[in-house]
Amino acid sequence: MKSKARPATGRLLYAQSGGVTAVINATAAGVIQNARAHGIKVYAARNGILGALREELIDTGKETTAAIDALRHTPGGAFGSCRYKLKSVDTHRAEYERLIDVLRAHDIRWFLYNGGNDSADTALKISQLGKSMGYDIRCIGVPKTVDNDLAVTDCCPGFGSVAKYTAVSTLEASLDVASMADTSTKVFILEVMGRHAGWIAAASGLAGEGADAPPHIILFPERVFDEAAFLAKVKATVERVGWCTVVASEGILNAEGQFLAEAGTRDAFGHAQLGGVAPVLAALVKEKLGYKYHWALPDYLQRSARHMASKTDAEQAYAVGKAAVDYALAGMNAVMPVIVRTSDAPYRWKIEPAALDKIANREKKMPTSFLTRDGFGITAAARRYLSPLIQGEAPLPYGRDGLPKYVQLKNVAVSKRLPAFEH
Amino acid sequence: MKSKARPATGRLLYAQSGGVTAVINATAAGVIQNARAHGIKVYAARNGILGALREELIDTGKETTAAIDALRHTPGGAFGSCRYKLKSVDTHRAEYERLIDVLRAHDIRWFLYNGGNDSADTALKISQLGKSMGYDIRCIGVPKTVDNDLAVTDCCPGFGSVAKYTAVSTLEASLDVASMADTSTKVFILEVMGRHAGWIAAASGLAGEGADAPPHIILFPERVFDEAAFLAKVKATVERVGWCTVVASEGILNAEGQFLAEAGTRDAFGHAQLGGVAPVLAALVKEKLGYKYHWALPDYLQRSARHMASKTDAEQAYAVGKAAVDYALAGMNAVMPVIVRTSDAPYRWKIEPAALDKIANREKKMPTSFLTRDGFGITAAARRYLSPLIQGEAPLPYGRDGLPKYVQLKNVAVSKRLPAFEH
Repeated sequence: MKSKARPATGRLLYAQSGGVTAVINATAAGVIQNARAHGIKVYAARNGILGALREELIDTGKETTAAIDALRHTPGGAFGSCRYKLKSVDTHRAEYERLIDVLRAHDIRWFLYNGGNDSADTALKISQLGKSMGYDIRCIGVPKTVDNDLAVTDCCPGFGSVAKYTAVSTLEASLDVASMADTSTKVFILEVMGRHAGWIAAASGLAGEGADAPPHIILFPERVFDEAAFLAKVKATVERVGWCTVVASEGILNAEGQFLAEAGTRDAFGHAQLGGVAPVLAALVKEKLGYKYHWALPDYLQRSARHMASKTDAEQAYAVGKAAVDYALAGMNAVMPVIVRTSDAPYRWKIEPAALDKIANREKKMPTSFLTRDGFGITAAARRYLSPLIQGEAPLPYGRDGLPKYVQLKNVAVSKRLPAFEH
Repeated sequence: MKSKARPATGRLLYAQSGGVTAVINATAAGVIQNARAHGIKVYAARNGILGALREELIDTGKETTAAIDALRHTPGGAFGSCRYKLKSVDTHRAEYERLIDVLRAHDIRWFLYNGGNDSADTALKISQLGKSMGYDIRCIGVPKTVDNDLAVTDCCPGFGSVAKYTAVSTLEASLDVASMADTSTKVFILEVMGRHAGWIAAASGLAGEGADAPPHIILFPERVFDEAAFLAKVKATVERVGWCTVVASEGILNAEGQFLAEAGTRDAFGHAQLGGVAPVLAALVKEKLGYKYHWALPDYLQRSARHMASKTDAEQAYAVGKAAVDYALAGMNAVMPVIVRTSDAPYRWKIEPAALDKIANREKKMPTSFLTRDGFGITAAARRYLSPLIQGEAPLPYGRDGLPKYVQLKNVAVSKRLPAFEH
């Protein structure tokens, strides 16, 4: 993975990609603070890789130390993100050449791309193209995704916080439902993110342990939705406990392989845009069992809830940013800093480099051993894996107005040096 | 309002009613701790007034000091609540007489009913019936409702916390949308509770100030939904800011006076059960303007989010519980401790007794002066009113597992002394 020694001059370009998280800016802080400590200037691409294509670069040197530090507790993507996947090098070579042109024009010698498996693929391709075009550039993928579906790394920065939000919300809403069940809501359905992997839904299982504790039923995209078994378990739970909390992944599929809540639209990566499996399930429960229901769909609230971030997650998000700079300056290329777990209890982890070609375009599903035999819950093995990821709180500064003090960067543009590019 | 001096003996009965909140148990703690300090035994009715009818009483004396103290930070209703409104005394006298029988059988001399305007009505009726049946009972209504729609009191315990949750969630999700807008979501719609009064939706306005800050559009049930004006403002906002955050009350009405999201079912109080105006608005935006959208519907998450409680709200919730006991022991009857604001900035408040007949069955809507002329935002007057209610944080104890340490009471049943009652 190592190439040559650190170039004498040059700048570092950092970009955010895909859905943002509660802690992606903590990664940005790790990148910028470490680069500053090494005397390296950091540019950020506005709206991810598109900013690089459009030569819309931001000079992070214009931000104060305090502003960069405040990124550690500010959700969203401070420089803008994008859902835009570069096409194949063979068919869209001009796009890649433009990227190299922009990097060259601004003497960018290190490119850090903060995203999921699509972004790892982009970083890998740019590193390959740099090599074939004779431009000295090191590309580092930096992990981020609430979906926790990246290969190689033990977990993904962003996941621990949405996991904590989901577990706490499941616990809190269940206390509410338990209070109301005698005369009102008997079944509560919480829909969470997770297109193809049920990691977030699984994390709700941390809210309680034992058959009578919520969530009583978790629906995973890894298991085909079995309507009869689901309804039977809802009924048995309501009859035994008095009420039932269900947590459903947005991506659960029926026996025909269709999303229960297919919205019919697709995002720029070609993924189906989901949302709304909860009302489908609620209507089913009402129709077949007659129970009064409530359902919730927190959507962006779950992945932007920095106020409920996991300390573990916030620390890991910062650490991968910091490590990415170390790797880049050490001359590594086409790698990603990944999280390696060395112990479950006490939880211990470290950061190591892993080759991007082992990560790009792959997707990590939950191991079968994490799901209970009936497919509606999580096992002790899953708890051992998940529990450390939501541990610890990451307190926020609040203003006198009662709101978190989130930072808004100045995002000063770097002067363009190239003509516009039509992509 | 004063009747005679405190009876020499007797117990106090406390019951929770209607939708629960993040801080209704803080009120319970105020009641129980103050009563204990006066040497008064407190029973709680299981599942609100139904527990009194069924003679399902809980002896709170069996709970430890630590458990009662933990109620101050535990959401939901610790003794169970109910959606059950007593019918008219004229047509359902047997139900009221049963209540008096149960109160008499357990030597209950003070009845504290913690709820909204329906519950204030129930407490008032029981106090009247006690008088006419010659049973010496003092009834105190204790305010609670996330809807903030009780008359007389300046604000309602429970509201400040859902207001803070809503403002913070609006801010956080908007940071997310802002990051994604270039290639993905342009319009984000957050649906909040509020059947007939837009207080919760209004609180989202605290997330930002000025035309470009989120939320850009708030939809109130106090204003008829004007589709053309709404779409024009969404379009103008996206074109100017790049994206648009909309916060919609569940209870917004069209020009025909119908709920946009009428679910067709009604709860036990005869209120329409709502939910789902966000997807209706999202589909409208997509169809008419073609913008990519996301929507969220936090439902119970918003009113059970003790992790995001307002300190002001948590303190007021405790204070009304404490005051209710003071009033009861001072011999007051048919009153409610209400919150009186004595100053906006610095915010100052006190608790005073108010007659239940000024509160029962009334509903406080937002003053017209709180809505901007176009009906899509809040005014400076609204900010002055709302801002103090979300101020301060009310930190929680967390366990090593990363979850809040919420208490589960033992809820030991009191032995029944009467035959069962069919209601």
